[in-house]
This record gives sequence, C-alpha cells and structure tokens, in this order.
Amino acid sequence: MVKRTSLKAADCPVARALDAIGDWWSLLIIRDALDGMRRFGEFQKSLGVAKGILSGRLHNLVDVGVLELVPASDGSAYQEYRLTERGRGLFHVVVGLRQWGETHLFSPEEAHSELVDIAKEEPVEKLELRSGTGRLLGWEDTIVRKVHRKV
Amino acid sequence: MVKRTSLKAADCPVARALDAIGDWWSLLIIRDALDGMRRFGEFQKSLGVAKGILSGRLHNLVDVGVLELVPASDGSAYQEYRLTERGRGLFHVVVGLRQWGETHLFSPEEAHSELVDIAKEEPVEKLELRSGTGRLLGWEDTIVRKVHRKV
Repeated sequence: MVKRTSLKAADCPVARALDAIGDWWSLLIIRDALDGMRRFGEFQKSLGVAKGILSGRLHNLVDVGVLELVPASDGSAYQEYRLTERGRGLFHVVVGLRQWGETHLFSPEEAHSELVDIAKEEPVEKLELRSGTGRLLGWEDTIVRKVHRKV
Repeated sequence: MVKRTSLKAADCPVARALDAIGDWWSLLIIRDALDGMRRFGEFQKSLGVAKGILSGRLHNLVDVGVLELVPASDGSAYQEYRLTERGRGLFHVVVGLRQWGETHLFSPEEAHSELVDIAKEEPVEKLELRSGTGRLLGWEDTIVRKVHRKV
C-alpha cells in the first residue's frame, strides 16, 4: 500500500477517516463485525485472507479504537474482537458502499445479499442527507467549507 | 496493495464496491471531484501524490465508469475528469466517512472543514437510514439477508 503519512493530521475529516481505517480489508472486517462476527477464525473464513494480513488489520483496528479485545462470550479461553461505539459509527459508511454497489455494480438478474429491517424483514430505504430544516440534500446542494475555526 | 481478485464477482455489494473503487487514493480523488475539481493538476496539488500513482487511479476510475474524460470546459486543448452519475452516487459514502471522522477523530478544539447546505450556509444533518415505514434504523435494527434470488 502507498504510504499516507500526511493524512493523519489532515483537517479534512474524510482524509483522517481513511487514514484511521487503513484499507479495504479493514472495512470488510468492520462489515463482518457489524454482521455479528467476533472470532479470528470467523473473519478468516469470511474473507479468505492470509492469517498475517488479518492479524495486522485486526491489531490496527484495535489500536485506532474501532475494535476491542474482550473475553469470549462462551466462557472459553479465547478472546473476541468486539466493535466499539467508534466502530459501530462506521455503519453508515458500510451501508453507503452497499447501496452504491447494489445500484451500480449488479445487473438486474444478479442475486445479492440485502440489508433488511429486522422488525419487518423488509429492505431498508436509501441513506438520506437532510438540511437543518429537513430538506433532502443531494451532492449538488452541498459545499465543503474549508477550515472552520471554533470559538 | 494486497490482491483482491475474488471480490469482483462477490455477491456482497460492499465487497464489490470496494473492488471497483480500488483504494483510498481513489476515494480522495472522488472527494475532490465532488468538491468540483476536474483537472489532473488540481487533483495532484490537492493530494500531494506522485503523478504515476494519480494517473493510474484516474485511469481505473474511468475504466469503472466513475469518472469520464471530457473536453476542458474553458475551450482549451486539455481534457478534464468529470464525475458520472455512478461517480456522484458515491456522495453518501464520502459524507459517511466525513461524519465519522468529525465525530471520532477530532478533539473539540480542533478545526476541520464542514459540509454545508448551499442554500442556507448551515451544516448538514447526520446521514439517516430509515425503514420502509419511516422508522430511523441503527446498526442493531438491521441484518444482512444472504443471497436473495430474484424472480
């Protein structure tokens, strides 16, 4: 992976977020953790990735506070990786990637997994961004205001 | 970067989306394109990245239909990179990363750029995910239903 040392202190939250998460494997680990996975072996089976790579990514995610190591829920000697509040905060990023993939990368007859509302077992709606007064905002309705100094 | 050949045909839209986008540099290019950048030189100045890397990422984004090459808007001989509809569809992913970064990676006294509603010049609200009946859904309210066969 290309070195990205300059992003950690970036004043753009997007750049800083990308720096913290690390790479695609990390986001797939977070996806699986949101799906309820906690064990090293579960992640490995799901991702089909070498143990060394997985181990490195899990360590990084613990370091940045996205995952935490906790005793296994079944009382065994194993440890599990659990999403922290910070980690669960990436839910909308994963949903955004999912919805973009669903819309643009599958042909109509292709099957794909779906995100459903547990209570109703119905697919969720698309993510929405709104203004303070509740208007729905698209990319053309917004602008990035460079560094805002807090008082 | 680690090879990810298995993700292109994945039945998980998240994995397929990550495969298409490529890597973090690509998502930062998309961020800048959503901010209105179109010229190679603009991206290079913003990202501080080597020309070869930038060129490779731009080509990949054209290949996957996120950017398109168009004649320069000022009538010069240059070409510009313009977001396609597919590319603009990544708006919510970039906003999700931004909002996560704002919430979890900045201390209260640290300045950062802000996404504002152009019409009101006020910061946007947080992204929302809702059920078909309008209920607000968090990560704990949803589940991924594995491959749904279309009829």
